[in-house]
Amino acid sequence: MKTQGLVRMCCHICKLPGRVMGIRVLRFSLVVILVLLLVAGALTALLPSVKEDKMLMLRREIKSQGKSTMDSFTLIMQTYNRTDLLLKLLNHYQAVPNLHKVIVVWNNIGEKAPDELWNSLGPHPIPVIFKQQTANRMRNRLQVFPELETNAVLMVDDDTLISTPDLVFAFSVWQQFPDQIVGFVPRKHVSTLSGIYSYGSFEMQAPGSGNGDQYSMVLIGASFFNSKYLEFFQRQPAAVHALIDDTQNCDDIAMNFIIAKHIGKTSGIFVKPVNMDNLEKETNSGYSGMWHRAEHALQRSYCINKLVNIYDSMPLKYSNIMISQFGFPYANYKRKI
Amino acid sequence: MKTQGLVRMCCHICKLPGRVMGIRVLRFSLVVILVLLLVAGALTALLPSVKEDKMLMLRREIKSQGKSTMDSFTLIMQTYNRTDLLLKLLNHYQAVPNLHKVIVVWNNIGEKAPDELWNSLGPHPIPVIFKQQTANRMRNRLQVFPELETNAVLMVDDDTLISTPDLVFAFSVWQQFPDQIVGFVPRKHVSTLSGIYSYGSFEMQAPGSGNGDQYSMVLIGASFFNSKYLEFFQRQPAAVHALIDDTQNCDDIAMNFIIAKHIGKTSGIFVKPVNMDNLEKETNSGYSGMWHRAEHALQRSYCINKLVNIYDSMPLKYSNIMISQFGFPYANYKRKI
Repeated sequence: MKTQGLVRMCCHICKLPGRVMGIRVLRFSLVVILVLLLVAGALTALLPSVKEDKMLMLRREIKSQGKSTMDSFTLIMQTYNRTDLLLKLLNHYQAVPNLHKVIVVWNNIGEKAPDELWNSLGPHPIPVIFKQQTANRMRNRLQVFPELETNAVLMVDDDTLISTPDLVFAFSVWQQFPDQIVGFVPRKHVSTLSGIYSYGSFEMQAPGSGNGDQYSMVLIGASFFNSKYLEFFQRQPAAVHALIDDTQNCDDIAMNFIIAKHIGKTSGIFVKPVNMDNLEKETNSGYSGMWHRAEHALQRSYCINKLVNIYDSMPLKYSNIMISQFGFPYANYKRKI
Repeated sequence: MKTQGLVRMCCHICKLPGRVMGIRVLRFSLVVILVLLLVAGALTALLPSVKEDKMLMLRREIKSQGKSTMDSFTLIMQTYNRTDLLLKLLNHYQAVPNLHKVIVVWNNIGEKAPDELWNSLGPHPIPVIFKQQTANRMRNRLQVFPELETNAVLMVDDDTLISTPDLVFAFSVWQQFPDQIVGFVPRKHVSTLSGIYSYGSFEMQAPGSGNGDQYSMVLIGASFFNSKYLEFFQRQPAAVHALIDDTQNCDDIAMNFIIAKHIGKTSGIFVKPVNMDNLEKETNSGYSGMWHRAEHALQRSYCINKLVNIYDSMPLKYSNIMISQFGFPYANYKRKI
């Protein structure tokens, strides 16, 4: 019926006489229509994958545009020679709520980052950017990455598995204390009579005369912090960058100095992890983390004294605040007798 | 020699002739001096207790003048019919570091406060003021006491024993969050589909969809809060005071409403107590606390809905932050496997 209407219209427009012309036009129109339908059918058969990906990307974009830059965070994970751990961890972290994007700082110089492998195993919940580096530097992870769009950074070492409940809670704590490092690994410095500082953990003498212990640093390798501090780090005296390059260490100590100096109070808040693991024993790479080096701990003390020298002050402040999630694990507010 | 000098001087001044007058004056002078010495000796024998107390008071005053009004706190303890518990608790609390003064709100109408007993068992480390009340009202403890000189109030129920380490730590937390109630007893309200609220503790449904529980109130009967909130309370609508008088309950819920409304965030911060006990079973008074009344819990829910009505809003906000002292008890930051 529609075709007849079309033909009638054509005739009316063309003002051609008679039936003979009408039949030829009709046949021609039918052929054209059939061809168009065939092509459409072929296209439809080809479209699905492209269309689905487009829909996914559109969906993801809509969702990420909805997210305010305070409501989500960017994971920055630096990696060297432990790609098996990296990929296992990425499978876990990519699904964490409120994660906006992952930036993998690829310190394996000369080795191609696994973009192709990553893409072939898609689709993924969020974008993951592999940033090939030109030199294997510890402080590569503290660059101001143009891909970073959020106010919060989640920085995690490439052998550290932090459970999702821990991350969700710690991020909510960071949102309440956005000028401090909110993380899972507390450390401290101790003063000695000679004025020389030493770096350590709970095994060291607690400062002050009260009960319990204190911490003065929260390590950045398992923490949330404000992304503006990456810019702060870049602006530090060359001596600070040189110290980190010389030791391939202490970037986290430097960050604590910078932040404590800036805010005039303790640089970090310790959140007690419920479920956090170090997977370094599980790597097949044969490579073990930097902290196994014989000189590692001594370097950390060395760095503290060097930084005090560079900044001409000791800005680190002690804290004994330990934060846990109320009611998780169940009834953790009850007294254990 | 001196006496002779005196006599000579007297003679010189008196211009009297001869030796006879001199000897009489000498004897008189000697008698006067002896009497003076005896009196002095007697006074010295009597003085010690008075002088010591004065020295103590002077020492205490010097110390308290040294304390800034942020560095110490005033304990306000309201008491009704459990004087045995009160006195036992005062023996404990009077020695807590940074305590400036104790104000006992004496709700035993018609019965004399134990000032004499208290003084007879002195000296005490800090002043304790017994405030005789004219009516037995729950909200008596929320008056603006003229004796209160500190920015911080420690409010404790007259059957609650909080250990000194807990108090010292919680006070240090309050100093970092002086606009919130920092205390040891968290509670919450729950919403229902009908819009009617209910009051409860951990046994109630946790709000939201995440892990763990939340609290929206910190009870004032074991807490530190800013003394300015006493003035705030006095300025509330008469309906609020009437509600508390009618129920002899809910003064703490009202305080949480007032503070949450004022600061626009959660009214309190929960500090997990290490060692806190309720001594109500130990009283010989035969009186058990208000919370044993059959209608107590229902009243609390009733109060929440009344207060929402009075303020035309629900200002309480949820929180899941639980604070503990890092390293106390020892190694409490370690994971329990």
